[in-house]
Amino acid sequence: MASGSASARAPQVQDENPSCNDVASFKAADIVVQLCENRKPKPESENLPFGTVFTDHMLLIEWSREGGWEKPRIQPFGNLSLHPACAALHYGVQLFEGMKAYRGQDDRVRLFRPMLNMKRMLKSAHRACLPSFDAAELLECIRKLVEVDQDWVPHSESASLYIRPAFLGTESKLGVMVSSHALLFVVLSPVGFYFSTGNNSVSLWADSKYIRAWKGGTGDCKMGGNYGASIVAQCEAMKFGCQQVLWLYGDDHQITEVGTMNLFLYWINEEGEEELATPPLDGIILPGITRQSILELARKWGEFKVSERYLTMAELRLAVEQKRVREMFGSGTACVVSRVGRVLYQGENLQIPCGDESNSLVSRLLKELTDIQYGRTESDWTFLV
Amino acid sequence: MASGSASARAPQVQDENPSCNDVASFKAADIVVQLCENRKPKPESENLPFGTVFTDHMLLIEWSREGGWEKPRIQPFGNLSLHPACAALHYGVQLFEGMKAYRGQDDRVRLFRPMLNMKRMLKSAHRACLPSFDAAELLECIRKLVEVDQDWVPHSESASLYIRPAFLGTESKLGVMVSSHALLFVVLSPVGFYFSTGNNSVSLWADSKYIRAWKGGTGDCKMGGNYGASIVAQCEAMKFGCQQVLWLYGDDHQITEVGTMNLFLYWINEEGEEELATPPLDGIILPGITRQSILELARKWGEFKVSERYLTMAELRLAVEQKRVREMFGSGTACVVSRVGRVLYQGENLQIPCGDESNSLVSRLLKELTDIQYGRTESDWTFLV
Repeated sequence: MASGSASARAPQVQDENPSCNDVASFKAADIVVQLCENRKPKPESENLPFGTVFTDHMLLIEWSREGGWEKPRIQPFGNLSLHPACAALHYGVQLFEGMKAYRGQDDRVRLFRPMLNMKRMLKSAHRACLPSFDAAELLECIRKLVEVDQDWVPHSESASLYIRPAFLGTESKLGVMVSSHALLFVVLSPVGFYFSTGNNSVSLWADSKYIRAWKGGTGDCKMGGNYGASIVAQCEAMKFGCQQVLWLYGDDHQITEVGTMNLFLYWINEEGEEELATPPLDGIILPGITRQSILELARKWGEFKVSERYLTMAELRLAVEQKRVREMFGSGTACVVSRVGRVLYQGENLQIPCGDESNSLVSRLLKELTDIQYGRTESDWTFLV
Repeated sequence: MASGSASARAPQVQDENPSCNDVASFKAADIVVQLCENRKPKPESENLPFGTVFTDHMLLIEWSREGGWEKPRIQPFGNLSLHPACAALHYGVQLFEGMKAYRGQDDRVRLFRPMLNMKRMLKSAHRACLPSFDAAELLECIRKLVEVDQDWVPHSESASLYIRPAFLGTESKLGVMVSSHALLFVVLSPVGFYFSTGNNSVSLWADSKYIRAWKGGTGDCKMGGNYGASIVAQCEAMKFGCQQVLWLYGDDHQITEVGTMNLFLYWINEEGEEELATPPLDGIILPGITRQSILELARKWGEFKVSERYLTMAELRLAVEQKRVREMFGSGTACVVSRVGRVLYQGENLQIPCGDESNSLVSRLLKELTDIQYGRTESDWTFLV
């Protein structure tokens, strides 16, 4: 028994070597492929629910502090066997990415700016104290996995193959520490396009009861904890008759993101300028690849002001009153763009115009982006599988 | 392909029934026990590292929206088999608890205020949109598990059996949603007392670069994401020659927690009063069971003011300068109490006194709490296994 003169040493966060971010990468050339014996039947391309059906194979790459990265393995899709003390299950030492493979009418399969996902994944890995890797090597491993399961890329321009890389700390000791073991894996799921015809805009619950992210937190990384913490707010939004959450921040109720998407406001701003605006990447905003692409497209057009700037609910409310709002939408890999039709804020419904359907900014962005994704337009944003 | 008139529907957060928090509980009376065939050798009680050795059995209880809670199972300790899309691995839909079983010199095994852990677990489950259960039923299941592995409770008053309940969303669809499946499990690990003789106080890095928790977030729940996000700060603390992080909050640099512990300051306050102070449970502080017990003990003594109040770094710095600080310490299940000896803040080392070793508050609290835990003092905080 410790005596009265006992004193404590650091009890849970332990002094492990944290310098695992700087290690030699796995190589795609080392990949080991074990094909499954029986291929599963493929679902219909139309009306595929999101993320419920998976392909025949998966990619796994294991790392340990002692042994470094193992050879990447493509193997039959199946459950993961994890130690019950696995850090990813207790301490949220986990992150993910989301991207898609698209089959064009030319039957070629393309990814959309995948190196941006790889680089964001490295940034998340650094935040989670998980080991580094060569982004190009991981992309080549993923390309190979999609190639192996290429028959699963829907023969449809209203569907695609969703690619889900995830990266887990698999330390099997209890105690909050830098993981000495990790598992990077990638699964594939054919998905529908999440678009239906008609003007199905989403309604948003804007309230500061739940805050998605905070400066000094992890809101600019795709770490799991950001998402699990959001579900209760999503449930509350539904109780208020809204479909998603408009995430606010700060005493001035800055508009940050919508659901799991970045947010854009297309409006006549306070200065009377036509402007496409989205909040800046100040640490609480996820640096979306669709977000970046929309900004780059709109800047290339040069037809209106394009801004990364703060937007508050007071500014939005005034603009709605003064009929200066043209469109408001979310952006993300799953939906490309998603119109906002209504915002419930402090008991008041702000009705958001949806633009002229045939001539709206949302429609134009959707067309330009999907034209690139499905290869109808040549672009250096395309990566061929 | 979606036409120009297409519009999006909610892409990722899906409209699942969120009302899974109100379900009929599993019952301990239904427990199914499958004993392992070969018991593992038990480690020495002394110098046990934290959370590296596990006992022969584990408790598992599965839930699904369709079927409700399954019968609790005690079965041989082993890996979990999880779908690669498991929500706990992607979206941090996970939470845990930490408690201990102590063997006294009377050879009886006791838990310390375990219903407080059960109730905190229910609160975390509500925040994670995981299903509810009857706290007393879970405690009885845990009691039964400890009974099955009772030989693993160290025969030592400088060691104990750490009990780790965890609760995972096991939805196997990609998409951020209320999990339709969940797994509650409990593992046991014999651990040392984390105390060594001598005055081994910890040094803290106090900086606002990383923020542990924020209002509207999950800092008052034991959700995994809180912990994984903290590791990078812990690494940075070590780079600055400190052992742990002193977590600050707000522009006035409020003192909130230390490492994974609650924080106490024992001082002469601004009014000249002798005071034991800890930050209030305002949503960003984990409601620690050791924290609550220290407050209750000190209030029962009635010897000095006991406050749940805000404390800022400016107040601490001034108090150190004016020699008004008597002791500062963290509190938690792993360490009970952990002295703070130094705080690095804005380039300045604040030296914290550690009190008279034989007569310090830390020593007194340690003795009173461990006297109860090991059954040397009768208490209604004791729960017999």
